[in-house]
Amino acid sequence: MYDIHDLTRKLQRKNDSKIVLLVADGLGGLPLTPGGKTELETANTPHMDALAKKGVLGLSTPVLPGITPGSGPGHLGLFGYDPLKYNIGRGVLEALGVDFDLGPDDVAIRGNYCTLDSDGNISDRRAGRIASEIGAALCEKLDKIEIPGVEVFVRHVKEYRLVIVIRGKGLAGEINDTDPQKTGVPPLEPQPRDDASKKTAELCKEFLKQAKEILKDDAPANFLTMRGIAKRPSIPTYEEVYGTRTAAIAVYPMYRGLAKLVGMDVLDAGATLEDQMKCLEANWNDYDFFFVHFKYTDSTGEDGNFDAKVQKTEEVDTAIPKIMALNPTVVIVTGDHSTPAKQKAHSWHPVPVLLTADCCRFDGSESFGEAECLKGGLGQFPAKHLMLLAMAHAGRLEKYGA
Amino acid sequence: MYDIHDLTRKLQRKNDSKIVLLVADGLGGLPLTPGGKTELETANTPHMDALAKKGVLGLSTPVLPGITPGSGPGHLGLFGYDPLKYNIGRGVLEALGVDFDLGPDDVAIRGNYCTLDSDGNISDRRAGRIASEIGAALCEKLDKIEIPGVEVFVRHVKEYRLVIVIRGKGLAGEINDTDPQKTGVPPLEPQPRDDASKKTAELCKEFLKQAKEILKDDAPANFLTMRGIAKRPSIPTYEEVYGTRTAAIAVYPMYRGLAKLVGMDVLDAGATLEDQMKCLEANWNDYDFFFVHFKYTDSTGEDGNFDAKVQKTEEVDTAIPKIMALNPTVVIVTGDHSTPAKQKAHSWHPVPVLLTADCCRFDGSESFGEAECLKGGLGQFPAKHLMLLAMAHAGRLEKYGA
Repeated sequence: MYDIHDLTRKLQRKNDSKIVLLVADGLGGLPLTPGGKTELETANTPHMDALAKKGVLGLSTPVLPGITPGSGPGHLGLFGYDPLKYNIGRGVLEALGVDFDLGPDDVAIRGNYCTLDSDGNISDRRAGRIASEIGAALCEKLDKIEIPGVEVFVRHVKEYRLVIVIRGKGLAGEINDTDPQKTGVPPLEPQPRDDASKKTAELCKEFLKQAKEILKDDAPANFLTMRGIAKRPSIPTYEEVYGTRTAAIAVYPMYRGLAKLVGMDVLDAGATLEDQMKCLEANWNDYDFFFVHFKYTDSTGEDGNFDAKVQKTEEVDTAIPKIMALNPTVVIVTGDHSTPAKQKAHSWHPVPVLLTADCCRFDGSESFGEAECLKGGLGQFPAKHLMLLAMAHAGRLEKYGA
Repeated sequence: MYDIHDLTRKLQRKNDSKIVLLVADGLGGLPLTPGGKTELETANTPHMDALAKKGVLGLSTPVLPGITPGSGPGHLGLFGYDPLKYNIGRGVLEALGVDFDLGPDDVAIRGNYCTLDSDGNISDRRAGRIASEIGAALCEKLDKIEIPGVEVFVRHVKEYRLVIVIRGKGLAGEINDTDPQKTGVPPLEPQPRDDASKKTAELCKEFLKQAKEILKDDAPANFLTMRGIAKRPSIPTYEEVYGTRTAAIAVYPMYRGLAKLVGMDVLDAGATLEDQMKCLEANWNDYDFFFVHFKYTDSTGEDGNFDAKVQKTEEVDTAIPKIMALNPTVVIVTGDHSTPAKQKAHSWHPVPVLLTADCCRFDGSESFGEAECLKGGLGQFPAKHLMLLAMAHAGRLEKYGA
């Protein structure tokens, strides 16, 4: 089967164009009642509506119809990487989420503190959901573990959750979880699923052995289980596949990490969208492509707070004049998935896409919202094709074939 | 992955239906200003509008969203062949473009006359863009080159451009260009990229050796470089995959050549659309499927002449009553890609499709244009699926499965 990037590697063309991809996380929504308006349709977004009038709309499918993506697959799709081809393991995402600078040879593991009873059986898979301060202190102790031949890092995530990273040559992550998913039984051994992972499985065992000794007096968190053991996936970089100098302006660690995975330069901006816009302006001349990530349309959706999501969508709108003042060639406003407040969770519903460029085919759209997007000129398309459209409208793709 | 033609080979059914595929090259366009009309929407096309009222519209994507096709991939898609699977090399297209009757074992090479200085370095990669008469005379001299075991043909294209065809058994075209893409350095040697192409690379070297001797006193065209070295791709024929007796009525050599590649009979018609219609009528009883190609909607688009493209689109409209008078079962009017006058080039924008047949599902279209096509019943679909729709509406496909 063809690979999109085999095409873009061959067809990429450099020019002075500037592309801005503004991702309002979880942008797509649902009306609270049939016939009602979605969050995006309810929001007062004069600037995005003005863009819609001179641009082209559509709906993207993050993975496949009916498939709800996590943040990893959602963003990989937007970045033009097939989320069914490139799989980001749970451990890797967790490490990215705490801003750990994961190297290409690292194996990342999600850990859960647990409670062992006197027979060595698990009596609580989450160690009584210990407070974050306690979890953090235990991680500092575990971070001192040394295993010959490799480096070991332990970072706290939240409450009973942690990340372990093993760094060394010849590691692999095809290893089963040690969490038995029930109580009254002992933790499982780290079991390799292939020969390449045998060495890493032994390292995991050694880590667990030392951890058991270190934690023995720390009940309820007197041990830990390992889950989502995974190596950082090998993903070709934006520079290689698209030929762009690419910057990410994202506040949350996980999105900064996802951007790093595809080789974006992650810029330091403050915590607000206004800070992010200042960062965009300050770095405008140094990059061709900007990925700007806004988290709060997703988090308000997950909270089930329709009105707050509307308000956060209106905040996104305030960024548009600042972007347009920089005279970009292509501006795309979209989400990585839908997060309807009604569902309080990510969903599979197609995601609104707004693309504007001088050479886009006007589709008569009047405003930016799901119903208008459904009639839009981009139609319904796989999210992984969005980058092709971005590149095309920026004049950055040569003709295919003669 | 499934292959469309594995399906059509099994499901094809013969009957007395007639299908006409009228391709107005580069048909799709853009308005000159946002909110304006495209070339097709501006054109006065009463006959196509009447077909739209009783037919069904849609938009086709030639290759992938954002990918601008050349004429080769554009037509392969329309003919139902995946343009990412079947790759037509530059040399092959160039040979087709001068009406050279390429055989299945031929390797075709695009040549550029160039100027070598006294040190053997290239001083002009296009030999001062010599006049066509000079280029043609030099090609006649090179056509006399003989290499034991193979046949060699040299044909002039235009100015400094030529085509070389090597015919023999066991040839292959995985050979690098000899054009170094810069001056002040010697031409490169023909370098094979695989073992199967080693013999052909040696033949190229022998050709270049003889050519150097023949051209030595013909400065500025005292040598040539080779580019786009390629074997004719092996493509299953229309007869095999669709079971149709198929004719092409095309004026320009490249499109006649593309039709030959898929096994169509290329009919001799005069140069005008009226001549082509006479040819269609004269051959009506002898074929099931007719591919009619009209070039000038593309060439006026490439010239950036919006009004001329409108006028040429209106000319296409005059063919409709003549086609309909023959009582075809299925008529399709479309393009192989868009060529917006605004962009003066092929583009990636989806291509208007009009299909009419007694059994099509009426979609309420009022006229034939991009905005109506966006609302059309065929939706947005890959161009390679158009032939399935053509066959289905002609009753030429059995049910799949029981």
